[in-house]
Amino acid sequence: MPAPSIDADRLWHRLMRLAEIGATPKGGVDRQALSEGETEAWRLVIDWAIQAGLAAETDAAANLFLVWKGRDPSLPPVMAGSHLDSQPTGGKFDGAFGVMAALEAVTTLAATGSAPERDVIVVAWMNEEGSRFAPGMMGSEAFAGLRPMAAIRAAKDAKGISAGAEIDRQLAAFTGLPRRPLGFPLFAYVEPHIEQHTLLEQAERVIGIVTGIQGKKTYEVTIEGTKGHAGTLAMRDRRDAVVAFAEVMSRLQAQIGRLDRIKFTVGQVLVEPNAPSIVPERVRFRIDLRHPDNGVLEKCGELVERISVAAAKPCTASVTPLVSAASNEFDTGLRELIAGSARQRGFPAMPLLSYAGHDARQMAPLCPSAMIFIPCRGGVSHDEGEWAEPQHVAAGAQVLCDVLFDLCRLA
Amino acid sequence: MPAPSIDADRLWHRLMRLAEIGATPKGGVDRQALSEGETEAWRLVIDWAIQAGLAAETDAAANLFLVWKGRDPSLPPVMAGSHLDSQPTGGKFDGAFGVMAALEAVTTLAATGSAPERDVIVVAWMNEEGSRFAPGMMGSEAFAGLRPMAAIRAAKDAKGISAGAEIDRQLAAFTGLPRRPLGFPLFAYVEPHIEQHTLLEQAERVIGIVTGIQGKKTYEVTIEGTKGHAGTLAMRDRRDAVVAFAEVMSRLQAQIGRLDRIKFTVGQVLVEPNAPSIVPERVRFRIDLRHPDNGVLEKCGELVERISVAAAKPCTASVTPLVSAASNEFDTGLRELIAGSARQRGFPAMPLLSYAGHDARQMAPLCPSAMIFIPCRGGVSHDEGEWAEPQHVAAGAQVLCDVLFDLCRLA
Repeated sequence: MPAPSIDADRLWHRLMRLAEIGATPKGGVDRQALSEGETEAWRLVIDWAIQAGLAAETDAAANLFLVWKGRDPSLPPVMAGSHLDSQPTGGKFDGAFGVMAALEAVTTLAATGSAPERDVIVVAWMNEEGSRFAPGMMGSEAFAGLRPMAAIRAAKDAKGISAGAEIDRQLAAFTGLPRRPLGFPLFAYVEPHIEQHTLLEQAERVIGIVTGIQGKKTYEVTIEGTKGHAGTLAMRDRRDAVVAFAEVMSRLQAQIGRLDRIKFTVGQVLVEPNAPSIVPERVRFRIDLRHPDNGVLEKCGELVERISVAAAKPCTASVTPLVSAASNEFDTGLRELIAGSARQRGFPAMPLLSYAGHDARQMAPLCPSAMIFIPCRGGVSHDEGEWAEPQHVAAGAQVLCDVLFDLCRLA
Repeated sequence: MPAPSIDADRLWHRLMRLAEIGATPKGGVDRQALSEGETEAWRLVIDWAIQAGLAAETDAAANLFLVWKGRDPSLPPVMAGSHLDSQPTGGKFDGAFGVMAALEAVTTLAATGSAPERDVIVVAWMNEEGSRFAPGMMGSEAFAGLRPMAAIRAAKDAKGISAGAEIDRQLAAFTGLPRRPLGFPLFAYVEPHIEQHTLLEQAERVIGIVTGIQGKKTYEVTIEGTKGHAGTLAMRDRRDAVVAFAEVMSRLQAQIGRLDRIKFTVGQVLVEPNAPSIVPERVRFRIDLRHPDNGVLEKCGELVERISVAAAKPCTASVTPLVSAASNEFDTGLRELIAGSARQRGFPAMPLLSYAGHDARQMAPLCPSAMIFIPCRGGVSHDEGEWAEPQHVAAGAQVLCDVLFDLCRLA
């Protein structure tokens, strides 16, 4: 039996319906991790899953599992999916495409009336984006044992609300969902995602066979100065945290930001007390560093520490590492399955590196893992203008459906 | 008849009572302009004024006037006071001391049973601090015709609430208060204030005879870049607004921040979207520039424009001037009255410049104006640790009482 064809219209319709939750005036989505919007998204997705004969389950980290029961419950499941949370001014596809493609693929397979050898699970990981609660990838890191639940629960958003309280709220909204243990064994993991880059678009390809994810390190740097009155405190007596930040930032940009293939970003800066006529006392900022070469990444990490402390003077700087993820390589067997499906279906495909981080990075050490990329217009992502063509969305889901069909041995 | 003595205990007690409104855990005050706290402060102060036989009035800018009626209503009034709003982490004395010293002085004079020749008005100006609604000095600028009410009403706080809505709320809470026109003629203006600097403390003086206020210019600079994904957007293709900010800030600090006698501060920085893994699109920041020499100040203003535009590349920068206040000199006649009172009462006094801006700057072109400074511990102000000694608070109020006694010709 060949793999069945997905229902492209149903998938597109559902993806657009999902994008109404947290919809922004500019056509984007604001559905941050563990928000009311994410709760609503769970409801919708669980409804669709139940219609397809799947069962909803969860775990202590508020990861959502939609389970198509297999013939042998003792076998480790196949898993596919992504995340339902978005950036505050995010788009309709980042994360949502992966979850909905997986749900569409499993819905299609389940509609054959056969049963898979082992459980097939559609997953929506908790807090991939890290915009509300930093750092991101909390759900998959908890699952992979890379971050203790206590640390995750203690994370607070800008309003002082803890991730723990919001996890409890989310789980309480779905009383009775069975809870799986964190880190249960897996047979394979496949994550479909928009590319968030222009390589596919420029090469006019529809399917990206992801070879691996570039390494990433993130830091929080806190510069401590001394508060004072802007009109009276003499310049020579100041320990101005914004002056120190500018110096640190300029030197980091000069020494790290110009390295070959580096991605260096300070996307978040918080000044205290942040009043126009007060010499600022404190600046906290986040550094996001990515590089495909783990050696370069390590060296940059050392530079961050050294430059921050030296350039902040006479203020003091302290550097807290948040994320340290090495570059990884995805499973060649799964990559061949993806390539084979694309070839058979006539989708132009190419291998490429993922420059963005994904939950698949956490799965890769646990089981054979892979990612399927589709193009997004202009490479624009983390933006309300994010867009993927309906035929590319369908192609990505169809390739996943083919891969899952190969993995789950229907009978 | 010699001038009467103020009731130092009553003044101190009332000042501490007032500081309970908006009290912070660290012993400071958070009573920002047009907040519920300021409404409560008005209630308290109006109650005390009415007990003393004064009448409460206001104007379209929500300035509060506590009027001791004079014998000849056709004569321009004498005015004294300061402001009741504070910084978000402000202290008990900045502003509140001036209003309460004036209320104590007038209460003392009114208790003699005589009437002044002309109205004597205790004033509390709206939004001196400018921390919630920028820029500061809104009430006195509206009074002096330096800023149109439409512009003041349009100012928004961080939550998007307009100053206009809050002025309406404040005035609605005191229905029936007579409204004076903006800019009614004045005979003289005296403002007591803590020094917010260490000159008096270091010289072991109790009374500062303020010679003038150093000039001030403030600007809002907006740097516009392009948003992007921190993991995928190549460094050479970025227009990163935080990178541009660091460059602009470093150059401003190098070229302006090192000038003799300059005060250069960037106290507020707002990054958008301010998410750790998004290349930032926009940085808005406030520049606060002060210098006693108007020529230097003008030159710095030109540098701000030139450096911001040049150093922000490849981002764009636009500079909006907010405040432009020249250095001024206070009335010599009033300064002599202050010096005479201090001499007679045995308070060590000295002339000094005000490095901080005050509402008195706006009054100086309208009528003979002056300021009385008292020391504050370590020069600390705009801070929860702000402190003035009770005997200095009493001395400042007594000198004001003596000056008002001289000005208002009791009969």
